[in-house]
Amino acid sequence: MNGTLYGVGLGPGDPELITLKAARLVGAATTVAYPALAGSASFARSIAAGLIRSSAREIVMDVPMTPAREPAQAAYDKAAAEISKVLEAGEDVVCLCEGDPFFYGSFMYLFARLSGRFEVEVVPGVTSLTTCAARAGLPLAARNERLTVLPGPLPEQELRDRISGAESVAILKVGRHMSKIRGVIDGLGLMPRAVYVERASLPEEVVCPLAEAPENAPYFSMILLTKGADPWL
Amino acid sequence: MNGTLYGVGLGPGDPELITLKAARLVGAATTVAYPALAGSASFARSIAAGLIRSSAREIVMDVPMTPAREPAQAAYDKAAAEISKVLEAGEDVVCLCEGDPFFYGSFMYLFARLSGRFEVEVVPGVTSLTTCAARAGLPLAARNERLTVLPGPLPEQELRDRISGAESVAILKVGRHMSKIRGVIDGLGLMPRAVYVERASLPEEVVCPLAEAPENAPYFSMILLTKGADPWL
Repeated sequence: MNGTLYGVGLGPGDPELITLKAARLVGAATTVAYPALAGSASFARSIAAGLIRSSAREIVMDVPMTPAREPAQAAYDKAAAEISKVLEAGEDVVCLCEGDPFFYGSFMYLFARLSGRFEVEVVPGVTSLTTCAARAGLPLAARNERLTVLPGPLPEQELRDRISGAESVAILKVGRHMSKIRGVIDGLGLMPRAVYVERASLPEEVVCPLAEAPENAPYFSMILLTKGADPWL
Repeated sequence: MNGTLYGVGLGPGDPELITLKAARLVGAATTVAYPALAGSASFARSIAAGLIRSSAREIVMDVPMTPAREPAQAAYDKAAAEISKVLEAGEDVVCLCEGDPFFYGSFMYLFARLSGRFEVEVVPGVTSLTTCAARAGLPLAARNERLTVLPGPLPEQELRDRISGAESVAILKVGRHMSKIRGVIDGLGLMPRAVYVERASLPEEVVCPLAEAPENAPYFSMILLTKGADPWL
């Protein structure tokens, strides 16, 4: 009988924001798999480091960061083949995912390759979205409000159109798109309610008004545009 | 010295989807507070029931379900006053929140009343949004895709406008708005990719195509419109 593939969300970075289920699965895993971007240390592995058995087999998905998609897709093909062998031998594999596996996560590439042939269970995790809101003290949405999630790499005009028609907005993956995004928000007159959050829940976390945010933001950064904390009385 | 108020997300319902941090805080709490809607049992309390000390003081926020907002606001005023007394006596209070406190959660009403006077820490939790996606096997969004979250009670025309201009969509709080929402999705020709999820992660969970969903949905139900599981190869 084949093993099961678990795609396990580990939350935004603080190891205490791992769920009890994720902790149980990682702690029992004889094989773990995880992505490492462009040869750097795996963020997902670092979140779960304290839970991984020293005897566990580790499958590293070395995902290149290139504009072309083919090299990354080839990396997922290779990882899927390696994971398949373990599953076919009847052993479970726990794939470590930062945040939530299906919220802008790379696990969906493994899921697409393997869910037709094997049992796959996705274990949701705490997202950066709600973690940034919690750390900034900014409720995201309530009652009948809409919430829009936009990736920072979107074209300037599209960002402008989407933000101007929205209520609460979260802009992910700010990174090197900071200047463009800040220009759009400033142009819409929304700077006073824009908050920047970087590496939420980690010791090096930054929370500040967007006006004071660094020009070079890391990939794991977010801008929140909400109504603020006050109108809920 | 005043105590600290913790707003603790407990996840979507499965007690194993509680985070390690939430479990630690609830297990150590000498006072817990939680909402109970219109006199019924508290869903938040039921998620954490196995962690609450038998000696813990319990503050129940009995929130009436009325179209007018004033009765609910009065209930939060009353709860805030009661919680204030405990905090002023130097004791911490752990407020139990289903899902995530700042993602369509009622904790924001306490936060608005108390965060100016007391230390308040918000602990993010796993949302129904990513749990429904996980249980349905449907990645929400990847790369530069937009994600739109819409509450089901929105007017028909607004739902139609927002869905037709969107990529991935999650419609929360379906409940008695099922007929209206299904009509909108059908009218847009999107029924083939619409999936209904009810009480995700609980034993009574339902996942099915929207076409087969019940006419009377519970409040804790969601409709997902995504690209499906396949285009990620």
